[in-house]
Amino acid sequence: MNAYALREGCEKAQPDWLMTAAPYLDMVERKIEATIASDVPAAYDLTMHLFSAGGKRIRPALAILCALASDSSASVERVIDFATATELVHMASLVHDDVVDETSERRGAPTANTIWGNKTSVLGGDFLLSKAFSLLARESDGEIMRVLANAAVRMTEGELLQASSEGDLAAWEVNYWSIIEGKTAALMSACCECSAIIARAPSPTRSALAQYGIQIGFAFQITDDLLDITGDPSLTGKETGTDLMHGKFTLPVLLAIEDFDAEERRLLIESSRTGITRDKARETAKRVVVSGAVERARRRADECSTKAIAQLAGLPDSEFRAALESLAGSLTGRKV
Amino acid sequence: MNAYALREGCEKAQPDWLMTAAPYLDMVERKIEATIASDVPAAYDLTMHLFSAGGKRIRPALAILCALASDSSASVERVIDFATATELVHMASLVHDDVVDETSERRGAPTANTIWGNKTSVLGGDFLLSKAFSLLARESDGEIMRVLANAAVRMTEGELLQASSEGDLAAWEVNYWSIIEGKTAALMSACCECSAIIARAPSPTRSALAQYGIQIGFAFQITDDLLDITGDPSLTGKETGTDLMHGKFTLPVLLAIEDFDAEERRLLIESSRTGITRDKARETAKRVVVSGAVERARRRADECSTKAIAQLAGLPDSEFRAALESLAGSLTGRKV
Repeated sequence: MNAYALREGCEKAQPDWLMTAAPYLDMVERKIEATIASDVPAAYDLTMHLFSAGGKRIRPALAILCALASDSSASVERVIDFATATELVHMASLVHDDVVDETSERRGAPTANTIWGNKTSVLGGDFLLSKAFSLLARESDGEIMRVLANAAVRMTEGELLQASSEGDLAAWEVNYWSIIEGKTAALMSACCECSAIIARAPSPTRSALAQYGIQIGFAFQITDDLLDITGDPSLTGKETGTDLMHGKFTLPVLLAIEDFDAEERRLLIESSRTGITRDKARETAKRVVVSGAVERARRRADECSTKAIAQLAGLPDSEFRAALESLAGSLTGRKV
Repeated sequence: MNAYALREGCEKAQPDWLMTAAPYLDMVERKIEATIASDVPAAYDLTMHLFSAGGKRIRPALAILCALASDSSASVERVIDFATATELVHMASLVHDDVVDETSERRGAPTANTIWGNKTSVLGGDFLLSKAFSLLARESDGEIMRVLANAAVRMTEGELLQASSEGDLAAWEVNYWSIIEGKTAALMSACCECSAIIARAPSPTRSALAQYGIQIGFAFQITDDLLDITGDPSLTGKETGTDLMHGKFTLPVLLAIEDFDAEERRLLIESSRTGITRDKARETAKRVVVSGAVERARRRADECSTKAIAQLAGLPDSEFRAALESLAGSLTGRKV
């Protein structure tokens, strides 16, 4: 699925933000294609496979829209380079996630680890991460490199915290927000913050956009978590309850468990220690829906979107600011 | 084994270069320790395990000695930061290599993947690579970031070329030098070149040191390849013929094969396709020794060391230049 197919998964026929971002995202597509070129066939084949599989390109869209919302005359060339680097960091994390989670399919296509094995996929992810930093190194502002490299550190910390919390309900209750801040919100926040730097925005704008990115990341991840419980597997390409089967206790589940009695909680903890089966995951997902926790989690995601939009108040009125508002508003309604 | 234990594996009791580099390498050890700190226990435990296992710290030594040989008043603080980043990139590649090669032991200690599994190790490697770029981003000279990030790209390309050439003798015959340039020489060369940049050395010095690093990398890798055939497993911690068992046809083997008759070559190609057994690997290693290819490969490594030393001619006479000469001369004699 490419960025434009996202409209199929959104309640609006064509989200406004995508209309505004589309011409710039086309440039990012070309830039990604040019950047991942390699004389080594194994590097090129794997990265072209990831590239061709497409994606929502949310991170480049955030980078482009935040830069142009800060200053509509910001250097498009610098923004496109930076936006490309953010997508490469994201692609690197996806290919490693698929190795780590032993995922065999993503967006209806076999994953890199399924086609080329873990060895090439681990190295392919390293190739993409290094390419991202190599592209970014052409950037003259060291502050941008600092913010993005720190986000990459926080991403891996979030993923590691998630990995070490697997199957441990108590750990998820403590760590849920740190995990999603690290694995999802940190990079989105860096996309927005660095774009403010590229646009030479004043410090309060930079902080506001960094915070916008954090809240967008929360809304995005909670919606992902919800799709694991309520999503249509034919659209998401994932079985219902996959997170539970992987020992991940996400927000809707954590909210539902608040209403569990001691015995029900004990039984879930017990089964999570040995690994939650497909049947148990489906049963728990149904229980989460019935409990009303899905609605409560959706409200939390909407609150994050609202908080994100509030951060845009100081920006000048423009189509780019409107697009950022539309993006924040459309995330929680997505179905893929 | 830490850097200082390297003396046990070298023909000289204490290589001169290590005496010169030791006080700076101590600073690098402290800087690595401080840099890998993380609030996430899984990140901290894994990286501390790698750190405590020690290593030759050849890359930081190259960085320090090249900078001070170019200008003895170069900023030690900048050099130590940079040297630390190079070791973090190297540590990241080691932990991913161990996942990729399913290595269970390194330097006599269990590998990270043995203790924490592949998931944490893949993410731990990403954490280290991101930390390296994060540390480097404090560096004000973008050129340093460019050279090191490009070296990281070439490293992964070298590793990918190696992975895709596994068990394919014809591919190794074509790709051997590209593989070792990528997987080993590129980073060593970047260590030397960036140090010249830190020391504000003139362009010819920068080129000469980059070339010094390439030749050092070749000598280092050929010696590694030789240790796989002739090394003492109690010192190297690796079985004889491990490379062959992994489908890697290294220089001594490639040189020996030049003398094989058609039938012997056909048999080796055939067994490499299905996977070379422990017995076949040992038998081939013996055949390589008998053929005289070990001596020929050693001469190639010595030639690389000599070429490396020749690159130092334009540097002012100093203990640091002498240490770089001593380092180049000592590599091919090492036993670990």
